[in-house]
Amino acid sequence: MMPSARRPRSHRSEFGPDSPILKQPVAAGLTNVGLMKALVYHGPGQKAWEDVPDATISEPTDVVVKIDTTTICGTDLHILHGDVPAVTDGRILGHEAVGTVTEVGDAVKGFSVGDRVLVPAITKCGRCEYCQRNMPSHCQTVGGIGWIFGHLIDGTQAESVRVPYADTSLYAVPANVTNEQAIFLADSLPTGYEVGVLAGKVRPGDTVAVVGAGAVGLSAILTTGLWGASRVIAVDTNKFRLDKAREFGATDTVEAGDNTTAEVLDLTGGAGVDVSIEAVGYPETLLTAASLVRPGGTIANIGVHGVPVSLPMQDMWIQNVTLTMGLVDTVSIPTLLKMVASGRIPAEKMGTHSFTFAQMDEAYDVFKNAAENSALKVVITPG
Amino acid sequence: MMPSARRPRSHRSEFGPDSPILKQPVAAGLTNVGLMKALVYHGPGQKAWEDVPDATISEPTDVVVKIDTTTICGTDLHILHGDVPAVTDGRILGHEAVGTVTEVGDAVKGFSVGDRVLVPAITKCGRCEYCQRNMPSHCQTVGGIGWIFGHLIDGTQAESVRVPYADTSLYAVPANVTNEQAIFLADSLPTGYEVGVLAGKVRPGDTVAVVGAGAVGLSAILTTGLWGASRVIAVDTNKFRLDKAREFGATDTVEAGDNTTAEVLDLTGGAGVDVSIEAVGYPETLLTAASLVRPGGTIANIGVHGVPVSLPMQDMWIQNVTLTMGLVDTVSIPTLLKMVASGRIPAEKMGTHSFTFAQMDEAYDVFKNAAENSALKVVITPG
Amino acid sequence: MMPSARRPRSHRSEFGPDSPILKQPVAAGLTNVGLMKALVYHGPGQKAWEDVPDATISEPTDVVVKIDTTTICGTDLHILHGDVPAVTDGRILGHEAVGTVTEVGDAVKGFSVGDRVLVPAITKCGRCEYCQRNMPSHCQTVGGIGWIFGHLIDGTQAESVRVPYADTSLYAVPANVTNEQAIFLADSLPTGYEVGVLAGKVRPGDTVAVVGAGAVGLSAILTTGLWGASRVIAVDTNKFRLDKAREFGATDTVEAGDNTTAEVLDLTGGAGVDVSIEAVGYPETLLTAASLVRPGGTIANIGVHGVPVSLPMQDMWIQNVTLTMGLVDTVSIPTLLKMVASGRIPAEKMGTHSFTFAQMDEAYDVFKNAAENSALKVVITPG
Amino acid sequence: MMPSARRPRSHRSEFGPDSPILKQPVAAGLTNVGLMKALVYHGPGQKAWEDVPDATISEPTDVVVKIDTTTICGTDLHILHGDVPAVTDGRILGHEAVGTVTEVGDAVKGFSVGDRVLVPAITKCGRCEYCQRNMPSHCQTVGGIGWIFGHLIDGTQAESVRVPYADTSLYAVPANVTNEQAIFLADSLPTGYEVGVLAGKVRPGDTVAVVGAGAVGLSAILTTGLWGASRVIAVDTNKFRLDKAREFGATDTVEAGDNTTAEVLDLTGGAGVDVSIEAVGYPETLLTAASLVRPGGTIANIGVHGVPVSLPMQDMWIQNVTLTMGLVDTVSIPTLLKMVASGRIPAEKMGTHSFTFAQMDEAYDVFKNAAENSALKVVITPG
Repeated sequence: MMPSARRPRSHRSEFGPDSPILKQPVAAGLTNVGLMKALVYHGPGQKAWEDVPDATISEPTDVVVKIDTTTICGTDLHILHGDVPAVTDGRILGHEAVGTVTEVGDAVKGFSVGDRVLVPAITKCGRCEYCQRNMPSHCQTVGGIGWIFGHLIDGTQAESVRVPYADTSLYAVPANVTNEQAIFLADSLPTGYEVGVLAGKVRPGDTVAVVGAGAVGLSAILTTGLWGASRVIAVDTNKFRLDKAREFGATDTVEAGDNTTAEVLDLTGGAGVDVSIEAVGYPETLLTAASLVRPGGTIANIGVHGVPVSLPMQDMWIQNVTLTMGLVDTVSIPTLLKMVASGRIPAEKMGTHSFTFAQMDEAYDVFKNAAENSALKVVITPG
Repeated sequence: MMPSARRPRSHRSEFGPDSPILKQPVAAGLTNVGLMKALVYHGPGQKAWEDVPDATISEPTDVVVKIDTTTICGTDLHILHGDVPAVTDGRILGHEAVGTVTEVGDAVKGFSVGDRVLVPAITKCGRCEYCQRNMPSHCQTVGGIGWIFGHLIDGTQAESVRVPYADTSLYAVPANVTNEQAIFLADSLPTGYEVGVLAGKVRPGDTVAVVGAGAVGLSAILTTGLWGASRVIAVDTNKFRLDKAREFGATDTVEAGDNTTAEVLDLTGGAGVDVSIEAVGYPETLLTAASLVRPGGTIANIGVHGVPVSLPMQDMWIQNVTLTMGLVDTVSIPTLLKMVASGRIPAEKMGTHSFTFAQMDEAYDVFKNAAENSALKVVITPG
Repeated sequence: MMPSARRPRSHRSEFGPDSPILKQPVAAGLTNVGLMKALVYHGPGQKAWEDVPDATISEPTDVVVKIDTTTICGTDLHILHGDVPAVTDGRILGHEAVGTVTEVGDAVKGFSVGDRVLVPAITKCGRCEYCQRNMPSHCQTVGGIGWIFGHLIDGTQAESVRVPYADTSLYAVPANVTNEQAIFLADSLPTGYEVGVLAGKVRPGDTVAVVGAGAVGLSAILTTGLWGASRVIAVDTNKFRLDKAREFGATDTVEAGDNTTAEVLDLTGGAGVDVSIEAVGYPETLLTAASLVRPGGTIANIGVHGVPVSLPMQDMWIQNVTLTMGLVDTVSIPTLLKMVASGRIPAEKMGTHSFTFAQMDEAYDVFKNAAENSALKVVITPG
Repeated sequence: MMPSARRPRSHRSEFGPDSPILKQPVAAGLTNVGLMKALVYHGPGQKAWEDVPDATISEPTDVVVKIDTTTICGTDLHILHGDVPAVTDGRILGHEAVGTVTEVGDAVKGFSVGDRVLVPAITKCGRCEYCQRNMPSHCQTVGGIGWIFGHLIDGTQAESVRVPYADTSLYAVPANVTNEQAIFLADSLPTGYEVGVLAGKVRPGDTVAVVGAGAVGLSAILTTGLWGASRVIAVDTNKFRLDKAREFGATDTVEAGDNTTAEVLDLTGGAGVDVSIEAVGYPETLLTAASLVRPGGTIANIGVHGVPVSLPMQDMWIQNVTLTMGLVDTVSIPTLLKMVASGRIPAEKMGTHSFTFAQMDEAYDVFKNAAENSALKVVITPG
């Protein structure tokens, strides 16, 4: 969801407890409902792979999806850190999945039992002003923010998940795209692509810098080619990530340090880059990204920030630069699926480690120290 | 040039004293050259309408223009304040003019003696990378910044001015556009339009807020209609300016104060505006502008800033907003000339007071206290 | 729907009789269902205002709307001419309405009984590939073409109408927009705006020619200002329409004849127009429109054609022109509603004559000879 | 210049014999001027590699370039066929070159003697309305059409060439781009890219068809990747060209024949392609291209047509398609140079055969029967 999320907030919208879409289906009596396993949050630092009631249809626009592949996002770590107060005790975590439809609400027309589907991080009602603007990140119907799985409703690190507004939210997975490829299109690849490459307006011939080569920064690097970048400069402190950056399409790498700005400018003959993508979320990294861009260029902030950033507007105002930021919409998934299907984006390279549901704790441990473990993203399957 | 300019700087470019375009033509002997009157800067707080050598051709791409109409910009006040160190003792001030071509360099093909022309604030070589990108604000040939009149070379508050790169910089004035209209297309109208309306990506149906209704903010208001804004909300502390704002096309006005944000949001039913234009240049006004915008909207900063601005990125990152800023390019002048010619932009309304060259001091006095004097822009002619 | 429609066809899609959305609800027994009045097509030249079963909910995504205002479109005349074979005996005509919701399907969330709504010409499922591309004109779910009212399902010239996919198709009408304004946003205004102004890429300062000043051509003229056209040249053979064109925003008018091209070019100093909009639908009018455009300009065809057009590609290939065409999507309705609400588009001017349901025949008679009757569009109400 | 050019025409502009830029420098006496070799046109079917006066500076904005590499274009063949009446007896042919600056006019600032430069097919004054719109294909200063070399002034199939408006027309060649790469950026690659890929608005994930896989069609194929095409379908009758198409990036090939449309539609599951590029220039090939596109897609015509094309507007009007066409502007050269320099476009693959100046006749013979000779473009050097 968010490269290093802290405090996701809805925008000028009080997220009322009576929004029907967020209502947990009340089981008339647990004897009628089966049980499944899921990763449940129990307050800061507390999680357990435990029995919970099966996911079931609650609204006619819902489907239930059996999870075949899921993964962990940096945001899940932040939730466990207690940084996302909207996530409360008892919530099933996770907002990324590939799975199989097992139950379909009466009003659902586009999906049937047995369909292999991608469950994206963002839920889209399809009719509110923001969905009509192609900005489900701020879907008004689901509470002003489109990210609800593992946040405001139960998530995807489970045997099954209830998916609201299935017709407009789910994506069918083409036969020639594997689960191990599709899983990274649920959140990380669209985030790097939409909030980095698209918002940054990368255009043919451009030189792009990417500050931070974790999973999201690498996703940006992997998709700069969709808009014809001629050079891609990756900046990070970690050698493994810089190596991966080259593998993912970077033409140059710079080890982050005191001379980062000078080294990047040097690579561009002093001119600065056309697009500078920030994929970390700290004031220093945003200021570094801002220092790299040429007049008229764009600084695309993907990082999730926890504190204000003091922007040197006395120097920047005259540079004709643009600063963009935002939550992913996941509306680029159809495009990315086509690129994976035609072999032009090797999405599977994002998955460095595999685990089963039973190894959920190990998966979290490896991902928590991703850089040390030479990990990018983990692939988790029923096993 | 700049709504409340402080420290214009070239971008990563050492502005060498040997750039040929900046060389003052060396008069072989003053006996050969006539004298003209001009407003000369003599250090902070010091200026004089005095005799100087006539403007003459220095390069084959130059023309000389006799000034028929000029005006004063907020930037000229900042220069007099000592805020722009690049302006040194002896410099003729001013960067806006309408006049008549009196002399033409050998390589100039597009203009002839007698042509009525608009001299814009920005000089454009037409061949450097930035001019080819339509960004002469950062023309590399003239030193990395396109604003050179009354800054790096002698300016337009004079009887005549030398105009470098005339073929690509000057604009012919159509017969049905008066000098009193055209003069405001030299800088203030393009600034409000390009840095506010264009950078802010105003689109049909949009609601736009303009924070600061001075000459540049009003220029933005006057041109929001070119992109079909449905509602325009002007924000200022000054009643005269808010009245003018309505006259220039604002549908709503808000007196700036403690409740500005709440009042503007209220006018939009809590939704926020699509585009929020800042036309002042202080941290508070930029933060106010930022507080008004809906998710996915744009904050277009026109103001010239003197200090950093602490941006609440912890709240903003998730809003999918864009922040733009920059120096005017004046490349919208052909469009604006057409709109004035067809009667759709009443540019002459920007001129509230008229003076002759002999009244240059009075003109500065009135403009210095524009709000109190119910002044927007002054029109200065030979008399 | 179509300025002078002949043969609307779905695109590579066999429109199966078993598409659930097109199924007429089968009344279990007519005794259970009330009767209403409606204008029913009975083959070429045959229509009657007669009793039919009430409109009722058929799918959970439907609503029923009581018609408060409707109108007639040129397409309705073509249907009566027998030009649209997909329209069969028994079909209720009409595809434009403003009305009141009287019944709501179970899956509808965005509308309630009593809501005042605009029923647009195009139905939008909201989830197929074309709806996701914002092109419901080719909605795959409703058969490959989004125009179904009065064509593939019963229409709006009736006391009530069943509206499929209500959540994504209907628009709430703001309190300060009247029925007499909103009715023209169902089809004619969006057609002129989307297929003419938007497809033609009118931009600030542009000169636009509109060939044909009937209801759709005038709709284009009325909306050129949303994109800042500086000059608008209307071309027609009819003086009443040319007068209306000036009232709707044209700056120049040209009486169509042998010298049309020469006269329009003359108005542009020989340069040609930036955008040339065709709103008639004949080979000659398209060739005239094509002859008016400057190199790099756009010819936006709105007209519905019945025969091939021999395009002089041997002359045109080198002109860098673009030719666009298409069916309306009606996705600009939210924008147009805002412009009407803020008083910037006087949509009500399109209605020149008013009739009651009981006068349906007179309404058709007047509209059939619109030019002679100095009519643009008719407004039809229950009375 | 043109894939199969017939009759290039200026647009509403009488190309006067007194345009200074077209004046041949009058040698005061041939004794003062040296001689060089050049390929001279002597009427239909007649050409000779013969002695002519050296190229010399005529205007202060000229430079002289010694030719190091040139090539032949399909347009040159059309000229020899007598299809371009504007080319008269005595004209030196050719409009593509890489060379070395040997002489510089007084007003030229951007180039010096010894610079390695690309001489593009299009000459750009840089100041007329069309050059300011980035459309030098219609540069008004050089006569309304930017293609003048080997057409209205002497061309590049010579030992030297005079280049007007050098500052705005020439491009410096980066050190890591070879002559054998750069030569194809003078005309064919920009033509395929600008008139095919850019005009067609290829976007990430798109499926693109290219009808005609000669040098220009292959140039389009080679550059579809700059905008992220997921699939590229090449259509041609020639097996060698289809093989080359795959080598240049096509994912699928279709041998042109009676079932072309059906086969291409089949490859897209019946949906049609997003962008259909025509690179031949006949009615049938344009109609084939038009038959392949999905609703809302673009048909980008690159072909040069000699006769009208009967467009089935009765079927097309409702498809929301766009048809584009035009002469190359060569303004994409900076972008293409960056892509070649970074190794992302292997431009050198376009050159299949090499010749010396002395072998000019053989070069023409091979190129005249390109398909039979398995030739794409020829590379010609002094030897």
